[in-house]
Amino acid sequence: MTTSPVDADLAEQLRATALALADAARVATLRWFRSAELAADNKDAAGFDPVTEADRAAERAMRELLAARRPDDAILGEEFGSREGTTGLTWILDPVDGTRAFLAGAPTWGVLIAVADDTGPLLGVIDQPFVRERFVGDRLAGEVVQAWTEGPMGSRPLATRAPRPLEQAVLMTTYPEVGTEEERRAFRRVAERARLTRYGLDCYAYALLAHGQVDLVIEAGLQTYDIAAPIAVIEAAGGLVTDWQGGPALGGGQVVAAANPVVHAAALERLTARE
Amino acid sequence: MTTSPVDADLAEQLRATALALADAARVATLRWFRSAELAADNKDAAGFDPVTEADRAAERAMRELLAARRPDDAILGEEFGSREGTTGLTWILDPVDGTRAFLAGAPTWGVLIAVADDTGPLLGVIDQPFVRERFVGDRLAGEVVQAWTEGPMGSRPLATRAPRPLEQAVLMTTYPEVGTEEERRAFRRVAERARLTRYGLDCYAYALLAHGQVDLVIEAGLQTYDIAAPIAVIEAAGGLVTDWQGGPALGGGQVVAAANPVVHAAALERLTARE
Repeated sequence: MTTSPVDADLAEQLRATALALADAARVATLRWFRSAELAADNKDAAGFDPVTEADRAAERAMRELLAARRPDDAILGEEFGSREGTTGLTWILDPVDGTRAFLAGAPTWGVLIAVADDTGPLLGVIDQPFVRERFVGDRLAGEVVQAWTEGPMGSRPLATRAPRPLEQAVLMTTYPEVGTEEERRAFRRVAERARLTRYGLDCYAYALLAHGQVDLVIEAGLQTYDIAAPIAVIEAAGGLVTDWQGGPALGGGQVVAAANPVVHAAALERLTARE
Repeated sequence: MTTSPVDADLAEQLRATALALADAARVATLRWFRSAELAADNKDAAGFDPVTEADRAAERAMRELLAARRPDDAILGEEFGSREGTTGLTWILDPVDGTRAFLAGAPTWGVLIAVADDTGPLLGVIDQPFVRERFVGDRLAGEVVQAWTEGPMGSRPLATRAPRPLEQAVLMTTYPEVGTEEERRAFRRVAERARLTRYGLDCYAYALLAHGQVDLVIEAGLQTYDIAAPIAVIEAAGGLVTDWQGGPALGGGQVVAAANPVVHAAALERLTARE
Protein backbone atom coordinates (compact mmCIF):
# COMPACT_ATOMS: atom_id res chain seq x y z
CA MET A 1 0.00 0.00 0.00
CA THR A 2 1.44 3.36 -1.03
CA THR A 3 2.13 5.80 1.78
CA SER A 4 -0.14 8.79 1.55
CA PRO A 5 1.35 12.30 1.41
CA VAL A 6 -1.46 13.74 3.56
CA ASP A 7 -0.33 15.62 6.72
CA ALA A 8 -2.09 15.26 10.07
CA ASP A 9 -4.11 18.49 9.91
CA LEU A 10 -5.34 17.77 6.42
CA ALA A 11 -6.15 14.19 7.41
CA GLU A 12 -8.35 15.41 10.27
CA GLN A 13 -10.04 17.91 7.99
CA LEU A 14 -10.79 15.24 5.38
CA ARG A 15 -12.14 12.82 8.01
CA ALA A 16 -14.42 15.48 9.50
CA THR A 17 -15.62 16.52 6.05
CA ALA A 18 -16.39 12.92 5.04
CA LEU A 19 -18.47 12.37 8.19
CA ALA A 20 -20.29 15.68 7.66
CA LEU A 21 -21.13 14.61 4.11
CA ALA A 22 -22.49 11.29 5.42
CA ASP A 23 -24.60 13.10 8.04
CA ALA A 24 -26.06 15.42 5.39
CA ALA A 25 -26.79 12.54 3.03
CA ARG A 26 -28.63 10.66 5.81
CA VAL A 27 -31.07 13.51 6.29
CA ALA A 28 -31.55 14.05 2.55
CA THR A 29 -32.16 10.38 1.74
CA LEU A 30 -34.40 9.54 4.72
CA ARG A 31 -36.62 12.47 3.76
CA TRP A 32 -37.63 10.34 0.75
CA PHE A 33 -37.18 6.72 1.90
CA ARG A 34 -40.50 4.83 2.00
CA SER A 35 -42.22 8.06 1.06
CA ALA A 36 -45.28 8.03 -1.16
CA GLU A 37 -43.91 11.15 -2.86
CA LEU A 38 -41.00 9.14 -4.23
CA ALA A 39 -40.72 9.63 -7.97
CA ALA A 40 -38.50 7.47 -10.15
CA ASP A 41 -37.24 8.54 -13.55
CA ASN A 42 -35.81 6.15 -16.05
CA LYS A 43 -32.46 7.58 -17.03
CA ASP A 44 -31.40 4.49 -18.96
CA ALA A 45 -34.06 3.60 -21.53
CA ALA A 46 -32.45 0.20 -22.22
CA GLY A 47 -32.23 -1.03 -18.62
CA PHE A 48 -33.82 -0.03 -15.38
CA ASP A 49 -31.92 2.64 -13.48
CA PRO A 50 -34.26 4.65 -11.29
CA VAL A 51 -33.02 8.05 -10.23
CA THR A 52 -34.84 9.23 -7.18
CA GLU A 53 -35.32 12.60 -5.61
CA ALA A 54 -33.28 11.18 -2.75
CA ASP A 55 -30.31 10.58 -5.02
CA ARG A 56 -30.31 14.14 -6.30
CA ALA A 57 -31.06 15.77 -2.94
CA ALA A 58 -28.26 13.88 -1.21
CA GLU A 59 -25.64 14.62 -3.85
CA ARG A 60 -26.70 18.28 -3.89
CA ALA A 61 -26.33 18.47 -0.10
CA MET A 62 -22.87 16.89 -0.25
CA ARG A 63 -21.70 19.18 -3.07
CA GLU A 64 -22.83 22.24 -1.10
CA LEU A 65 -20.77 21.13 1.90
CA LEU A 66 -17.74 20.49 -0.31
CA ALA A 67 -18.10 23.92 -1.94
CA ALA A 68 -17.90 25.46 1.53
CA ARG A 69 -15.21 23.24 3.09
CA ARG A 70 -13.07 21.91 0.25
CA PRO A 71 -13.72 24.21 -2.72
CA ASP A 72 -10.49 23.29 -4.55
CA ASP A 73 -10.90 19.49 -4.48
CA ALA A 74 -12.26 17.72 -7.54
CA ILE A 75 -15.62 15.88 -7.40
CA LEU A 76 -16.84 12.81 -9.25
CA GLY A 77 -20.53 12.29 -8.47
CA GLU A 78 -23.06 9.79 -9.78
CA GLU A 79 -25.82 12.31 -10.42
CA PHE A 80 -24.13 15.60 -11.33
CA GLY A 81 -20.88 14.46 -12.97
CA SER A 82 -17.36 15.84 -12.51
CA ARG A 83 -15.92 19.07 -11.15
CA GLU A 84 -12.22 19.79 -11.72
CA GLY A 85 -9.91 20.58 -8.79
CA THR A 86 -6.40 21.81 -8.04
CA THR A 87 -5.41 19.93 -4.86
CA GLY A 88 -4.83 16.47 -6.31
CA LEU A 89 -7.73 15.17 -4.19
CA THR A 90 -11.03 13.93 -5.65
CA TRP A 91 -14.27 13.26 -3.76
CA ILE A 92 -16.14 10.31 -5.24
CA LEU A 93 -19.85 10.29 -4.32
CA ASP A 94 -22.66 7.80 -4.83
CA PRO A 95 -25.61 9.33 -2.98
CA VAL A 96 -27.80 6.20 -3.17
CA ASP A 97 -26.04 2.95 -3.99
CA GLY A 98 -28.83 0.42 -4.40
CA THR A 99 -31.61 2.53 -5.87
CA ARG A 100 -33.69 -0.61 -6.53
CA ALA A 101 -33.48 -1.62 -2.86
CA PHE A 102 -34.41 1.96 -1.97
CA LEU A 103 -37.44 1.81 -4.28
CA ALA A 104 -38.53 -1.47 -2.68
CA GLY A 105 -38.23 -0.08 0.86
CA ALA A 106 -35.40 -2.50 1.73
CA PRO A 107 -32.79 -1.24 4.20
CA THR A 108 -29.71 -2.44 2.28
CA TRP A 109 -29.00 0.66 0.14
CA GLY A 110 -26.33 3.08 1.28
CA VAL A 111 -24.43 6.29 0.72
CA LEU A 112 -20.86 5.94 -0.62
CA ILE A 113 -18.26 8.64 -0.04
CA ALA A 114 -14.55 8.42 -0.85
CA VAL A 115 -11.64 10.80 -1.19
CA ALA A 116 -8.81 9.70 -3.46
CA ASP A 117 -5.45 10.93 -4.70
CA ASP A 118 -3.43 9.46 -7.56
CA THR A 119 -2.56 6.43 -5.37
CA GLY A 120 -6.26 5.52 -5.02
CA PRO A 121 -8.92 5.95 -2.33
CA LEU A 122 -7.44 7.31 0.94
CA LEU A 123 -10.68 7.31 2.93
CA GLY A 124 -14.07 5.73 2.42
CA VAL A 125 -17.47 5.78 4.13
CA ILE A 126 -20.25 3.26 3.58
CA ASP A 127 -23.24 4.69 5.39
CA GLN A 128 -26.61 3.03 6.01
CA PRO A 129 -29.03 5.85 6.83
CA PHE A 130 -32.05 3.72 7.75
CA VAL A 131 -30.18 1.19 9.89
CA ARG A 132 -28.04 4.04 11.28
CA GLU A 133 -24.89 2.07 10.65
CA ARG A 134 -21.64 3.54 9.35
CA PHE A 135 -18.48 1.82 8.11
CA VAL A 136 -15.32 3.91 7.74
CA GLY A 137 -11.81 3.06 6.59
CA ASP A 138 -8.84 5.30 5.91
CA ARG A 139 -5.11 5.27 5.27
CA LEU A 140 -4.76 9.06 5.49
CA ALA A 141 -2.00 8.63 8.06
CA GLY A 142 -0.01 6.45 5.67
CA GLU A 143 0.81 2.95 6.89
CA VAL A 144 -1.37 3.38 9.98
CA VAL A 145 -4.83 2.46 8.81
CA GLN A 146 -8.07 2.92 10.66
CA ALA A 147 -11.29 1.00 10.15
CA TRP A 148 -14.36 1.18 12.36
CA THR A 149 -18.09 0.81 12.39
CA GLU A 150 -20.78 2.45 14.48
CA GLY A 151 -24.37 1.24 14.56
CA PRO A 152 -27.25 -0.20 16.57
CA MET A 153 -24.88 -2.45 18.52
CA GLY A 154 -22.29 0.26 19.29
CA SER A 155 -18.82 0.97 17.90
CA ARG A 156 -16.13 -1.53 17.04
CA PRO A 157 -13.03 -1.85 14.89
CA LEU A 158 -13.41 -3.50 11.50
CA ALA A 159 -11.26 -6.51 10.58
CA THR A 160 -11.74 -9.00 7.77
CA ARG A 161 -11.90 -12.76 8.26
CA ALA A 162 -8.93 -15.10 8.52
CA PRO A 163 -8.36 -17.48 5.60
CA ARG A 164 -10.62 -20.51 5.28
CA PRO A 165 -11.19 -22.88 2.38
CA LEU A 166 -13.54 -21.73 -0.40
CA GLU A 167 -15.86 -24.58 0.66
CA GLN A 168 -16.33 -22.72 4.00
CA ALA A 169 -16.64 -19.24 2.48
CA VAL A 170 -19.68 -16.95 2.39
CA LEU A 171 -20.08 -15.23 -1.00
CA MET A 172 -22.25 -12.25 -1.85
CA THR A 173 -23.38 -10.48 -5.02
CA THR A 174 -26.27 -8.16 -5.77
CA TYR A 175 -27.92 -9.64 -8.88
CA PRO A 176 -28.21 -13.41 -9.46
CA GLU A 177 -27.66 -12.80 -13.19
CA VAL A 178 -24.39 -10.98 -12.21
CA GLY A 179 -23.65 -9.49 -15.68
CA THR A 180 -23.22 -11.05 -19.10
CA GLU A 181 -23.81 -14.78 -19.64
CA GLU A 182 -20.02 -15.35 -19.55
CA GLU A 183 -19.72 -13.35 -16.32
CA ARG A 184 -22.59 -15.32 -14.82
CA ARG A 185 -20.84 -18.60 -15.65
CA ALA A 186 -17.58 -17.39 -14.07
CA PHE A 187 -19.48 -16.32 -10.95
CA ARG A 188 -21.25 -19.70 -10.79
CA ARG A 189 -17.86 -21.48 -10.79
CA VAL A 190 -17.08 -19.73 -7.49
CA ALA A 191 -20.60 -20.01 -6.07
CA GLU A 192 -20.71 -23.78 -6.67
CA ARG A 193 -17.74 -24.20 -4.33
CA ALA A 194 -18.73 -21.67 -1.68
CA ARG A 195 -20.61 -22.68 1.43
CA LEU A 196 -23.30 -20.06 1.04
CA THR A 197 -24.24 -17.39 -1.54
CA ARG A 198 -26.44 -14.41 -0.70
CA TYR A 199 -27.96 -11.87 -3.06
CA GLY A 200 -29.37 -8.38 -3.06
CA LEU A 201 -27.29 -6.48 -0.51
CA ASP A 202 -25.68 -3.79 -2.72
CA CYS A 203 -22.91 -1.87 -0.89
CA TYR A 204 -23.89 -3.51 2.39
CA ALA A 205 -22.14 -6.65 1.13
CA TYR A 206 -18.79 -4.83 1.06
CA ALA A 207 -19.43 -3.44 4.53
CA LEU A 208 -20.11 -6.95 5.86
CA LEU A 209 -16.86 -8.17 4.27
CA ALA A 210 -14.93 -5.40 6.07
CA HIS A 211 -16.84 -6.41 9.23
CA GLY A 212 -15.55 -10.01 9.08
CA GLN A 213 -18.95 -11.56 8.28
CA VAL A 214 -18.37 -12.46 4.64
CA ASP A 215 -15.38 -13.87 2.70
CA LEU A 216 -16.05 -12.70 -0.87
CA VAL A 217 -18.09 -10.17 -2.83
CA ILE A 218 -18.06 -10.64 -6.61
CA GLU A 219 -19.83 -8.27 -8.99
CA ALA A 220 -19.68 -7.04 -12.59
CA GLY A 221 -20.70 -3.86 -14.37
CA LEU A 222 -19.68 -1.52 -11.55
CA GLN A 223 -18.76 2.17 -11.84
CA THR A 224 -15.90 3.95 -10.07
CA TYR A 225 -18.36 5.60 -7.66
CA ASP A 226 -19.74 2.15 -6.71
CA ILE A 227 -16.39 0.75 -5.60
CA ALA A 228 -14.14 3.65 -4.44
CA ALA A 229 -15.50 3.79 -0.88
CA PRO A 230 -15.64 -0.03 -0.50
CA ILE A 231 -11.98 -0.24 -1.57
CA ALA A 232 -10.93 2.20 1.16
CA VAL A 233 -13.01 0.50 3.87
CA ILE A 234 -12.02 -3.06 2.94
CA GLU A 235 -8.29 -2.31 2.54
CA ALA A 236 -8.21 -0.54 5.90
CA ALA A 237 -9.92 -3.58 7.47
CA GLY A 238 -7.27 -5.94 6.05
CA GLY A 239 -8.93 -7.17 2.85
CA LEU A 240 -8.24 -6.58 -0.82
CA VAL A 241 -10.24 -5.54 -3.88
CA THR A 242 -9.20 -6.19 -7.49
CA ASP A 243 -10.75 -6.84 -10.87
CA TRP A 244 -11.35 -10.47 -11.92
CA GLN A 245 -7.80 -10.67 -13.34
CA GLY A 246 -6.16 -9.38 -10.15
CA GLY A 247 -5.61 -5.85 -11.47
CA PRO A 248 -6.87 -2.50 -10.12
CA ALA A 249 -10.60 -2.31 -9.34
CA LEU A 250 -11.07 1.46 -9.06
CA GLY A 251 -12.13 1.73 -12.71
CA GLY A 252 -15.17 -0.46 -11.95
CA GLY A 253 -16.36 -3.27 -14.22
CA GLN A 254 -15.68 -6.75 -12.82
CA VAL A 255 -14.80 -6.60 -9.13
CA VAL A 256 -13.77 -9.21 -6.56
CA ALA A 257 -13.43 -8.14 -2.92
CA ALA A 258 -11.82 -10.64 -0.58
CA ALA A 259 -11.24 -10.97 3.15
CA ASN A 260 -7.65 -12.14 2.66
CA PRO A 261 -5.17 -13.11 -0.09
CA VAL A 262 -5.88 -16.84 0.29
CA VAL A 263 -9.59 -16.69 -0.50
CA HIS A 264 -8.86 -14.01 -3.12
CA ALA A 265 -6.50 -16.37 -4.96
CA ALA A 266 -9.03 -19.21 -4.78
CA ALA A 267 -11.74 -16.96 -6.25
CA LEU A 268 -9.51 -15.62 -9.06
CA GLU A 269 -8.50 -19.15 -10.01
CA ARG A 270 -12.13 -20.14 -10.56
CA LEU A 271 -13.19 -16.84 -12.13
CA THR A 272 -10.48 -17.15 -14.80
CA ALA A 273 -10.69 -20.95 -15.29
CA ARG A 274 -11.33 -22.39 -18.76
CA GLU A 275 -14.49 -24.50 -18.77
CA MET B 1 -62.39 -12.91 7.43
CA THR B 2 -63.93 -14.94 10.26
CA THR B 3 -64.82 -13.01 13.39
CA SER B 4 -62.61 -14.06 16.28
CA PRO B 5 -64.20 -15.36 19.47
CA VAL B 6 -61.55 -13.65 21.61
CA ASP B 7 -62.88 -11.24 24.28
CA ALA B 8 -61.25 -7.87 25.01
CA ASP B 9 -59.32 -8.93 28.13
CA LEU B 10 -57.91 -12.01 26.46
CA ALA B 11 -57.04 -9.96 23.37
CA GLU B 12 -55.01 -7.53 25.49
CA GLN B 13 -53.28 -10.40 27.26
CA LEU B 14 -52.35 -12.06 23.98
CA ARG B 15 -51.04 -8.78 22.51
CA ALA B 16 -48.92 -8.08 25.59
CA THR B 17 -47.61 -11.64 25.58
CA ALA B 18 -46.66 -11.49 21.89
CA LEU B 19 -44.71 -8.26 22.41
CA ALA B 20 -42.98 -9.70 25.49
CA LEU B 21 -41.94 -12.74 23.44
CA ALA B 22 -40.54 -10.45 20.74
CA ASP B 23 -38.61 -8.42 23.32
CA ALA B 24 -37.11 -11.59 24.81
CA ALA B 25 -36.18 -12.96 21.39
CA ARG B 26 -34.40 -9.69 20.52
CA VAL B 27 -32.09 -10.02 23.48
CA ALA B 28 -31.46 -13.72 22.90
CA THR B 29 -30.69 -13.36 19.17
CA LEU B 30 -28.56 -10.20 19.37
CA ARG B 31 -26.40 -11.92 21.97
CA TRP B 32 -25.19 -14.13 19.08
CA PHE B 33 -25.57 -11.95 15.96
CA ARG B 34 -22.20 -11.17 14.34
CA SER B 35 -20.53 -13.00 17.21
CA ALA B 36 -17.36 -15.00 16.65
CA GLU B 37 -18.77 -17.62 19.03
CA LEU B 38 -21.54 -18.39 16.57
CA ALA B 39 -21.68 -22.10 15.90
CA ALA B 40 -23.75 -23.59 13.10
CA ASP B 41 -24.90 -27.18 13.02
CA ASN B 42 -26.13 -28.85 9.92
CA LYS B 43 -29.47 -30.33 10.83
CA ASP B 44 -30.35 -31.30 7.27
CA ALA B 45 -27.54 -33.37 5.78
CA ALA B 46 -28.99 -33.08 2.27
CA GLY B 47 -29.29 -29.30 2.16
CA PHE B 48 -27.88 -26.46 4.17
CA ASP B 49 -29.97 -25.51 7.19
CA PRO B 50 -27.83 -23.95 9.91
CA VAL B 51 -29.22 -24.03 13.39
CA THR B 52 -27.60 -21.44 15.54
CA GLU B 53 -27.29 -20.97 19.23
CA ALA B 54 -29.40 -17.85 18.65
CA ASP B 55 -32.24 -19.92 17.25
CA ARG B 56 -32.32 -22.21 20.26
CA ALA B 57 -31.77 -19.49 22.86
CA ALA B 58 -34.58 -17.34 21.45
CA GLU B 59 -37.10 -20.18 21.25
CA ARG B 60 -36.17 -21.29 24.77
CA ALA B 61 -36.71 -17.74 26.08
CA MET B 62 -40.10 -17.51 24.36
CA ARG B 63 -41.22 -20.94 25.66
CA GLU B 64 -40.27 -19.96 29.21
CA LEU B 65 -42.42 -16.84 28.95
CA LEU B 66 -45.32 -18.85 27.55
CA ALA B 67 -45.01 -21.42 30.34
CA ALA B 68 -45.42 -18.59 32.85
CA ARG B 69 -48.08 -16.51 31.08
CA ARG B 70 -50.05 -18.89 28.87
CA PRO B 71 -49.37 -22.40 30.20
CA ASP B 72 -52.47 -23.96 28.64
CA ASP B 73 -51.95 -22.74 25.05
CA ALA B 74 -50.39 -25.06 22.49
CA ILE B 75 -46.98 -24.26 20.93
CA LEU B 76 -45.59 -25.06 17.50
CA GLY B 77 -41.92 -24.05 17.41
CA GLU B 78 -39.25 -24.45 14.74
CA GLU B 79 -36.56 -25.74 17.08
CA PHE B 80 -38.31 -27.63 19.86
CA GLY B 81 -41.45 -28.97 18.15
CA SER B 82 -45.02 -29.07 19.44
CA ARG B 83 -46.64 -28.80 22.86
CA GLU B 84 -50.32 -29.68 23.20
CA GLY B 85 -52.77 -27.19 24.73
CA THR B 86 -56.35 -26.98 25.99
CA THR B 87 -57.43 -23.41 25.11
CA GLY B 88 -57.81 -23.78 21.34
CA LEU B 89 -54.98 -21.25 20.89
CA THR B 90 -51.58 -22.15 19.41
CA TRP B 91 -48.40 -20.04 19.49
CA ILE B 92 -46.38 -20.50 16.30
CA LEU B 93 -42.72 -19.52 16.74
CA ASP B 94 -39.81 -19.15 14.33
CA PRO B 95 -36.99 -17.75 16.47
CA VAL B 96 -34.68 -16.91 13.52
CA ASP B 97 -36.32 -16.76 10.11
CA GLY B 98 -33.42 -16.31 7.68
CA THR B 99 -30.65 -18.27 9.40
CA ARG B 100 -28.44 -17.87 6.30
CA ALA B 101 -28.78 -14.09 6.42
CA PHE B 102 -28.01 -14.28 10.14
CA LEU B 103 -24.89 -16.34 9.44
CA ALA B 104 -23.74 -13.78 6.85
CA GLY B 105 -24.24 -10.84 9.21
CA ALA B 106 -27.03 -9.38 7.04
CA PRO B 107 -29.80 -7.50 8.87
CA THR B 108 -32.74 -9.06 7.02
CA TRP B 109 -33.46 -12.05 9.29
CA GLY B 110 -36.26 -11.78 11.82
CA VAL B 111 -38.24 -13.35 14.63
CA LEU B 112 -41.73 -14.63 13.75
CA ILE B 113 -44.44 -14.98 16.37
CA ALA B 114 -48.09 -15.80 15.75
CA VAL B 115 -51.07 -16.95 17.79
CA ALA B 116 -53.75 -18.86 15.93
CA ASP B 117 -57.08 -20.53 16.59
CA ASP B 118 -58.94 -22.86 14.25
CA THR B 119 -59.80 -19.90 11.98
CA GLY B 120 -56.11 -19.17 11.37
CA PRO B 121 -53.58 -16.65 12.72
CA LEU B 122 -55.24 -14.01 14.93
CA LEU B 123 -52.10 -12.00 15.67
CA GLY B 124 -48.63 -11.90 14.15
CA VAL B 125 -45.34 -10.18 14.87
CA ILE B 126 -42.44 -9.85 12.42
CA ASP B 127 -39.58 -8.45 14.49
CA GLN B 128 -36.17 -7.26 13.24
CA PRO B 129 -33.89 -7.25 16.27
CA PHE B 130 -30.85 -5.62 14.65
CA VAL B 131 -32.73 -2.88 12.79
CA ARG B 132 -35.01 -2.52 15.84
CA GLU B 133 -38.07 -2.61 13.63
CA ARG B 134 -41.31 -4.39 14.50
CA PHE B 135 -44.36 -5.16 12.35
CA VAL B 136 -47.57 -6.24 14.08
CA GLY B 137 -50.99 -7.19 12.77
CA ASP B 138 -54.00 -8.60 14.58
CA ARG B 139 -57.70 -9.34 14.21
CA LEU B 140 -58.16 -10.28 17.85
CA ALA B 141 -61.03 -7.79 18.12
CA GLY B 142 -62.86 -9.47 15.25
CA GLU B 143 -63.62 -7.30 12.24
CA VAL B 144 -61.59 -4.41 13.66
CA VAL B 145 -58.06 -5.14 12.58
CA GLN B 146 -54.89 -3.40 13.72
CA ALA B 147 -51.60 -3.20 11.87
CA TRP B 148 -48.66 -1.03 12.84
CA THR B 149 -44.91 -0.77 12.65
CA GLU B 150 -42.37 0.80 14.98
CA GLY B 151 -38.76 1.36 13.99
CA PRO B 152 -35.92 3.81 13.36
CA MET B 153 -38.30 6.27 11.70
CA GLY B 154 -41.01 6.09 14.39
CA SER B 155 -44.43 4.43 14.49
CA ARG B 156 -46.99 4.28 11.74
CA PRO B 157 -49.98 2.23 10.66
CA LEU B 158 -49.40 -0.48 8.07
CA ALA B 159 -51.39 -0.51 4.84
CA THR B 160 -50.71 -2.42 1.65
CA ARG B 161 -50.45 -0.79 -1.79
CA ALA B 162 -53.36 0.07 -4.05
CA PRO B 163 -53.73 -2.00 -7.23
CA ARG B 164 -51.36 -1.33 -10.11
CA PRO B 165 -50.59 -3.34 -13.24
CA LEU B 166 -48.16 -6.27 -12.86
CA GLU B 167 -45.80 -4.31 -15.13
CA GLN B 168 -45.52 -1.69 -12.37
CA ALA B 169 -45.26 -4.18 -9.50
CA VAL B 170 -42.31 -4.86 -7.20
CA LEU B 171 -41.81 -8.60 -6.58
CA MET B 172 -39.70 -10.27 -3.89
CA THR B 173 -38.50 -13.76 -3.12
CA THR B 174 -35.64 -15.09 -1.00
CA TYR B 175 -33.82 -17.56 -3.27
CA PRO B 176 -33.38 -16.96 -7.03
CA GLU B 177 -33.77 -20.71 -7.60
CA VAL B 178 -37.15 -20.43 -5.73
CA GLY B 179 -37.77 -24.19 -5.39
CA THR B 180 -38.01 -27.00 -7.92
CA GLU B 181 -37.27 -26.38 -11.60
CA GLU B 182 -41.02 -26.23 -12.29
CA GLU B 183 -41.55 -23.77 -9.43
CA ARG B 184 -38.68 -21.65 -10.73
CA ARG B 185 -40.29 -21.51 -14.17
CA ALA B 186 -43.64 -20.46 -12.68
CA PHE B 187 -41.93 -17.76 -10.64
CA ARG B 188 -40.07 -16.52 -13.74
CA ARG B 189 -43.39 -16.08 -15.57
CA VAL B 190 -44.38 -13.51 -12.94
CA ALA B 191 -40.91 -11.96 -12.63
CA GLU B 192 -40.66 -11.39 -16.38
CA ARG B 193 -43.72 -9.13 -16.23
CA ALA B 194 -42.93 -7.34 -12.98
CA ARG B 195 -41.14 -4.01 -12.93
CA LEU B 196 -38.53 -5.11 -10.41
CA THR B 197 -37.56 -8.33 -8.60
CA ARG B 198 -35.49 -8.35 -5.41
CA TYR B 199 -33.95 -11.33 -3.64
CA GLY B 200 -32.65 -12.35 -0.26
CA LEU B 201 -34.91 -10.57 2.23
CA ASP B 202 -36.51 -13.54 4.07
CA CYS B 203 -39.41 -12.46 6.32
CA TYR B 204 -38.53 -8.81 5.78
CA ALA B 205 -40.11 -9.10 2.33
CA TYR B 206 -43.53 -9.84 3.91
CA ALA B 207 -43.07 -6.92 6.30
CA LEU B 208 -42.35 -4.59 3.37
CA LEU B 209 -45.48 -5.83 1.61
CA ALA B 210 -47.56 -5.02 4.70
CA HIS B 211 -45.78 -1.64 4.78
CA GLY B 212 -46.93 -0.75 1.24
CA GLN B 213 -43.45 -0.92 -0.33
CA VAL B 214 -43.85 -4.13 -2.31
CA ASP B 215 -46.71 -5.64 -4.35
CA LEU B 216 -45.93 -9.38 -4.30
CA VAL B 217 -43.87 -11.94 -2.39
CA ILE B 218 -43.73 -15.40 -3.98
CA GLU B 219 -41.92 -18.34 -2.36
CA ALA B 220 -41.95 -22.13 -2.28
CA GLY B 221 -40.96 -24.76 0.25
CA LEU B 222 -42.19 -22.81 3.29
CA GLN B 223 -43.20 -24.24 6.67
CA THR B 224 -46.19 -23.18 8.78
CA TYR B 225 -43.90 -21.32 11.19
CA ASP B 226 -42.46 -19.30 8.23
CA ILE B 227 -45.81 -17.96 7.10
CA ALA B 228 -48.19 -17.80 10.11
CA ALA B 229 -47.00 -14.39 11.37
CA PRO B 230 -46.74 -12.88 7.86
CA ILE B 231 -50.35 -13.96 7.17
CA ALA B 232 -51.59 -12.13 10.27
CA VAL B 233 -49.58 -8.96 9.56
CA ILE B 234 -50.42 -8.80 5.85
CA GLU B 235 -54.14 -9.54 6.28
CA ALA B 236 -54.42 -6.87 8.99
CA ALA B 237 -52.69 -4.40 6.62
CA GLY B 238 -55.19 -5.11 3.84
CA GLY B 239 -53.35 -7.73 1.78
CA LEU B 240 -53.91 -11.43 1.20
CA VAL B 241 -51.82 -14.60 1.36
CA THR B 242 -52.68 -17.87 -0.40
CA ASP B 243 -50.96 -20.83 -1.98
CA TRP B 244 -50.20 -20.71 -5.72
CA GLN B 245 -53.67 -22.14 -6.50
CA GLY B 246 -55.47 -19.53 -4.37
CA GLY B 247 -56.08 -21.89 -1.43
CA PRO B 248 -55.00 -21.57 2.23
CA ALA B 249 -51.32 -20.77 2.80
CA LEU B 250 -50.97 -21.63 6.49
CA GLY B 251 -49.76 -25.13 5.71
CA GLY B 252 -46.68 -23.67 3.97
CA GLY B 253 -45.33 -24.94 0.67
CA GLN B 254 -45.96 -22.56 -2.26
CA VAL B 255 -47.01 -19.11 -1.03
CA VAL B 256 -48.05 -15.92 -2.79
CA ALA B 257 -48.59 -12.79 -0.69
CA ALA B 258 -50.20 -9.86 -2.44
CA ALA B 259 -50.94 -6.23 -1.64
CA ASN B 260 -54.47 -6.46 -3.07
CA PRO B 261 -56.79 -8.85 -4.93
CA VAL B 262 -55.99 -7.35 -8.34
CA VAL B 263 -52.26 -8.02 -8.28
CA HIS B 264 -52.95 -11.35 -6.55
CA ALA B 265 -55.15 -12.46 -9.46
CA ALA B 266 -52.53 -11.35 -11.98
CA ALA B 267 -49.84 -13.33 -10.18
CA LEU B 268 -52.00 -16.50 -9.84
CA GLU B 269 -52.84 -16.37 -13.54
CA ARG B 270 -49.18 -16.45 -14.48
CA LEU B 271 -48.15 -18.93 -11.77
CA THR B 272 -50.71 -21.48 -12.99
CA ALA B 273 -50.37 -20.77 -16.75
CA ARG B 274 -49.53 -23.60 -19.15
CA GLU B 275 -46.31 -22.86 -21.00
